[in-house]
This record gives sequence, structure tokens and C-alpha cells, in this order.
Amino acid sequence: MTRTILSSATKEVVIGFDQPFCVIGERINPTGRKKLAAEMKEGNYATVEADAIAQVAAGAAMLDVNAGIPLADEPRILAETIQLVQSLVDVPLSIDSSIIEALEAGLGVYKGRPLVNSVTGEDESLERVLPLIKKYDCAVVAISNDETGISEDPDVRFEVAKKIVERAHDHGIKPCDVVVDPLVMPIGAMGTAGRQVFALLNRLRTELKVNSTCGLSNISFGVPNRRALNAHFLSMAAAAGLTSAIMNPLHAEDMSGAMAANVLNGVDANCSRWIKKFREPAVVDAGAEGGGREGRRRRRAR
Amino acid sequence: MTRTILSSATKEVVIGFDQPFCVIGERINPTGRKKLAAEMKEGNYATVEADAIAQVAAGAAMLDVNAGIPLADEPRILAETIQLVQSLVDVPLSIDSSIIEALEAGLGVYKGRPLVNSVTGEDESLERVLPLIKKYDCAVVAISNDETGISEDPDVRFEVAKKIVERAHDHGIKPCDVVVDPLVMPIGAMGTAGRQVFALLNRLRTELKVNSTCGLSNISFGVPNRRALNAHFLSMAAAAGLTSAIMNPLHAEDMSGAMAANVLNGVDANCSRWIKKFREPAVVDAGAEGGGREGRRRRRAR
Repeated sequence: MTRTILSSATKEVVIGFDQPFCVIGERINPTGRKKLAAEMKEGNYATVEADAIAQVAAGAAMLDVNAGIPLADEPRILAETIQLVQSLVDVPLSIDSSIIEALEAGLGVYKGRPLVNSVTGEDESLERVLPLIKKYDCAVVAISNDETGISEDPDVRFEVAKKIVERAHDHGIKPCDVVVDPLVMPIGAMGTAGRQVFALLNRLRTELKVNSTCGLSNISFGVPNRRALNAHFLSMAAAAGLTSAIMNPLHAEDMSGAMAANVLNGVDANCSRWIKKFREPAVVDAGAEGGGREGRRRRRAR
Repeated sequence: MTRTILSSATKEVVIGFDQPFCVIGERINPTGRKKLAAEMKEGNYATVEADAIAQVAAGAAMLDVNAGIPLADEPRILAETIQLVQSLVDVPLSIDSSIIEALEAGLGVYKGRPLVNSVTGEDESLERVLPLIKKYDCAVVAISNDETGISEDPDVRFEVAKKIVERAHDHGIKPCDVVVDPLVMPIGAMGTAGRQVFALLNRLRTELKVNSTCGLSNISFGVPNRRALNAHFLSMAAAAGLTSAIMNPLHAEDMSGAMAANVLNGVDANCSRWIKKFREPAVVDAGAEGGGREGRRRRRAR
């Protein structure tokens, strides 16, 4: 049973097939957030603080921290942001950068065992990131693209993921510390994007036996009612094998999707998290809802 | 590619792996609806009329019609109800009764090719229902229980389904005309109910190659926020192979689940049904939502 163990100074989180879906909060990321980028660049972390606290309050099990700001000192800002966030909340973090120096700076100040986001199948990325993962004994997100870009063929993406897992093994990193991002295409541009990812997630779980993650909202880019589509993508993907996602925990529909997936995948024992969250007033008779079919079925079942 | 073809006098509906999820409206069923039962018994079909029209307006592709009222003349009432419903709406019907005489009466007046709901794996049921299915050249819901009741073991339920498909074949009925109900247990009572059904649906699709259906709301019996749980059960089950469900089309969340499943399973070409239903005002920029991760991914994807 594959288990990826992450921690902060005081708290451990396990990503795994037998675990509740791991919600990784995506908000602390200046990409596409001009105001946040400007604030972080000038050392104003008020929005970061608010985002950290709000996401954990909303149920995020981990937070992704990204400081990718053009023409800024990303290593310093990322390290400062991580220290600040770790002083505010106790969830483990995902250290998110495509710049190796920034990852090093983040790892240098991090307390606990983080997830590093990310390594790709490109040789340069593998040779620079994997030694860091080994040195700091942490886990890494493996993105299934390589020098040739992102293949539209899921079998090619699987082979890239496999290559990263094997190369990590060469560096002394266990498969359970490689969390594969199968790369989610927008369904509006590619009608097979859903089925493709579900099939790929199934192979990642059964053949490579690794945990998985993705940027959840990619699936619905350009399509209306994104929240509902994201939420159902999450639960369907979780049924297919997805064990975590980088997503917005402030979106209640997405969180309901994750919680429903936990119930239906049998990783919310006695539905206790679901019931705690959605318990109805005692006057409501849940048995009164649901229509005739169920009544008949229940009688048959006796 | 398995296709179950149903029809009314004027309209054909196909249940199939490559088709949109088939929503079968459950409302015309007096079980647990005392007022409706009393009305139907005295020949008042006002509620039936309203339910028929509302369910089709809400997007039901078929309607289930049940007239199971204690101490009433079920064959006569079922036949009358079917004739009335067929005069009001053009969707194919599922003729729902556990009484053979009622099924016969319904089949006698039905215009088109109906779904008969249902046959079980019990010998008496098989020997009485299957000849009717052959005689009227229609399709049948096969419920995976037998003389021993409903097994909690999904492998046993699979074997019962297989037995029904084989017995139907002996009667000259093709597997594509057998729509298996794998039987959904309440998740509140059995934490494995979800995964069990997903695995069973996968086997029904890949091994028996048959279509499937279920009473959707059974899954959430006794648990709060049933709508969200039903909706995610629907989309997850559709990802696992479920091709239809007997459900309440007036529940918007469930319908969104079915529509999202169609998009993500690649059976809503160009997301056209989804976009038609949820199109946003032109001023909204869909690209503005979704956070930084997506922006980064899209840049990487180039």
C-alpha cells in the first residue's frame, strides 16, 4: 500500500490509496494574481497570511507555496513565504518552483518533510532536482512531460512518469516518494481528456503503484459552470486512482466532491467526516427523501 | 459496442457505452407516496400527468412507471397509467412491476419497445418474465439477487447477473437487451458499498459487456446531504461503467452529475449539452478564474 509521508514541524499527512483525498491548497501563488505578486515582491505578506489561514480553515490538508514573480528574487521570497506560512499553520507544504535555487532556498528553511513541486522528465530537471530530493529526504511531484513537451498520447505520458520513477530510484528515492501529475488537458479542447486521465490514473495506481496529483481546475478551462465540472472531475478521478490535487479549498463544491469521493471510496470510516460536516437538524427525517424505488429496494433487501 | 434500443411510438433512446448517461425518471411510483397511491387507486391521474411532464422537461430520457398499490388492481392501473403517460410525453418507458400479470397488461398496451423492470435471478422470475421479453421483443432490467437474497459479496452478485444473461440467451434474448442492476447498498450501512459497485460495474462492462442501471438514491440512505452524495455517486459510477439510473430528474445536483459525467466520459461532443445548459453571460471571462497553477501549466504546455 503506497503511502507518501509529508510533515510540518508538528503534523504528519499521508497521501495514499487507503487515505482520505489530500487537498493541497493552491492559493499562495502569484501567477495570474497581479496584486499578490506586487505585494510579495515588496515584502508585504498580508494576502499570503490570509490565504494560508483561510485555506486550512476550509479543510486543506497541505498548502502549495509558489513565489514565481518575474524579475524578483524568487529564492529569497519563497524562503520568507515558507517561514511565514509555517509560523501560521501546521499543515505540511508543497514547495513550488521551476527554479532550482528557489527550491534549495525553500528546502533550507523548511521544518519537516515537504513535497517538492516539481521535477519533469527532462534530463536537466531530473539531474538537478532529484539530488535535492535525496539530500533533504523529501517527496517530489513528477510531471509527465519531457523535452518533447506534453504528449497528447496518455501512453507516452505514462512512459515519462515511469522514466521519472526509475530515475528517482537510481538516486535512492523510493517510488512512494514520487507523486505523479499525469497532466490534465482542458476538456473543452480535447473531448477525450477525461477518459484519458482516468485510464492513466488507473495505470499509475496498478502498474507503477504511485500516488498522483494534478492541477484540478485545468480540466474545465474555457467551459461554463467550472465549479461543478471540477468537482465531478475530482470525484471521478479519485475513483480512478487520484490521491491528491492542487486546488482551491475555498470552493465548497470542489471540497464536497473530495468528501463525497472519500465516502464512496470507503476512506471516510462510518461516513464520519461527511456526517460531521453535513449533519442535518434532528427534526429532518432523512428516510423521507428518495422516492419510491428505494422503498421497494429496501423491502426486497430484507 | 453494447447498445440497448428502447422506443416510444415516435422516439428512440439508446443506452450504451458510447451514449450520454440515460436518466430514467423514478417519480411515477406510488411506493412510499401515499397521496399518489390513493389517487391512482381511484383513477385520478393528475399527479401522474404532472410528474410525467415535469420529469421530461427536467431532462429525463425515459420514465419508469410503477403502479404497485396494495389491494389495488395493479394490471389495470399500470396499463391505464402507461397509456396516459404515452399520450403526454414521447420518451420510452420502463414498465415496472414485480407482478407478472401487471407486466403483461402494460406490455399489451405499450406503443414501441419498452424496458421491463424487472427480472431477478430467481428461477420463478426467470421462467415467467423472460418468455414475455422474448414475446414482445423488448429489453429487461436484471436485478442481481436470487432465491438466497442479495449477497453482500459482489462476486456472487456478478455470478447472478451472468446467470440471468445466460438464461436470457437460452430464451433467444440478446445480452444487449439485458440491463443489469448490480444492486446498490446504503454507504452508511456498508462502507465498501461504493467501491464494491464500482468494481462490479467495471466487470459488467468489460466481462459481460452489458448495460447497467440502479436505483440511484439507495447509496445515500440515512446519510445527510444526500443530493451531493447521490450526484457524485452517479458520476463516479458512470466513470466505472454505469450507463443509466432510475432517479429523480427534478434534483438539479443529480442532473449536473449526469451531465458532468457525460462531458468527462467524452460522450457530450464538444461539451455542447453542458455549454447549452450552463452558458454564462458573454461578459464573464472564464479564463480569469482558476488560479495560478493553471496559468503556469498552460504556459508549460506550449
